[in-house]
Amino acid sequence: MQIAILLYDRFTSLDAVGPFELLSRLPGAETVFVSKQPGPVRNDQGNLALVADRAITEVTAPDIVLVPGGPGSRQAMHDETLLDWLRAADATSTWTTSVCTGSLVLAGAGLLDGRRATSHWLALDDLVPYGAEPTGERVVFDGKYVTAAGVSSGIDMALHLLGRIAGDDVARTVQLMTEYDPQPPYDAGSPEKAPEPVVAFSRTLADEVSTAKG
Amino acid sequence: MQIAILLYDRFTSLDAVGPFELLSRLPGAETVFVSKQPGPVRNDQGNLALVADRAITEVTAPDIVLVPGGPGSRQAMHDETLLDWLRAADATSTWTTSVCTGSLVLAGAGLLDGRRATSHWLALDDLVPYGAEPTGERVVFDGKYVTAAGVSSGIDMALHLLGRIAGDDVARTVQLMTEYDPQPPYDAGSPEKAPEPVVAFSRTLADEVSTAKG
Repeated sequence: MQIAILLYDRFTSLDAVGPFELLSRLPGAETVFVSKQPGPVRNDQGNLALVADRAITEVTAPDIVLVPGGPGSRQAMHDETLLDWLRAADATSTWTTSVCTGSLVLAGAGLLDGRRATSHWLALDDLVPYGAEPTGERVVFDGKYVTAAGVSSGIDMALHLLGRIAGDDVARTVQLMTEYDPQPPYDAGSPEKAPEPVVAFSRTLADEVSTAKG
Repeated sequence: MQIAILLYDRFTSLDAVGPFELLSRLPGAETVFVSKQPGPVRNDQGNLALVADRAITEVTAPDIVLVPGGPGSRQAMHDETLLDWLRAADATSTWTTSVCTGSLVLAGAGLLDGRRATSHWLALDDLVPYGAEPTGERVVFDGKYVTAAGVSSGIDMALHLLGRIAGDDVARTVQLMTEYDPQPPYDAGSPEKAPEPVVAFSRTLADEVSTAKG
């Protein structure tokens, strides 16, 4: 079982590392971070680089492909080198997955046409031109395509996948070892739950990101 | 506001990246990953390296210090170079924090003597020789010392800190932008909640880690 996590410039760190931390505990799994060139790949804020240990050309048939989101997804979704790799990997994958706006990269590769999928709540509409049917669910399974909502939702996606792949007790063991017993002090994690001024302010932040970074 | 996140060999990735993703969104904050030597630092499973952009000698007075956990904490907690840096940074910090067994490193530096603190559920007893009073809470504040339980709990800690530092609505905005609306498909995230066979098996996994890696 090989798990490949794709990195590209200006990805969001937790999109990748959240599900990585849980999925890579799958007994017998090999997890590898890949990018166009091996080496450090810097995140959306520029303050953290993760090392891609392998080039995408070296990892051609992973069992699980995971694409994180981030502002850089807006470029990655049009990068034919990445998209060709993604299509080829998808041809033999058991699971093709994304977190946050990573689903836009899957969509750009043509993999979500006619499928139910999700993304960051601010990006759901951007799936539509690619033939995907956006849903407000946190983790969406459509056949072997699994998409998760914004940033932190990849952790929940990983637990779902662990359960499907290895059974409920393996998933529960990973949940216990990572002590994933969430107790957020606020209940503002979705636009339906957050106070309206917080939602409105968050929309302006997203606009700033789009304007500043493309 | 400068936030320094300490990396050392065999840290647990999500311990660092979970709270990083949320805390670094604090308006005006500079977040920097540090280690004894700048450059890639590899995680507990050996399958991911994060880049420390700065040496600890270059970051001497951060406002927030965050120490992640991981099997390598058992060495880090006796590494006098790290401990000296931690004591010096703590002398001027506003918040000194840890996730998971990162609290053992704080304890090794003598910073938790007489304080309430937490750690990974399998490591709580290891705090006692250092004068700390372990608690089963997920996030523990004792003055400026903030410790979080295992791995994923650093995300909750970050929300608590954001609220204290910048107010509830900033914390809620970060929660919404990271879509932290947890919906785990299992309820096994603490030893009180997980089925007994899962708890028992998890204890054997921890023993294996201790035996294999010190």
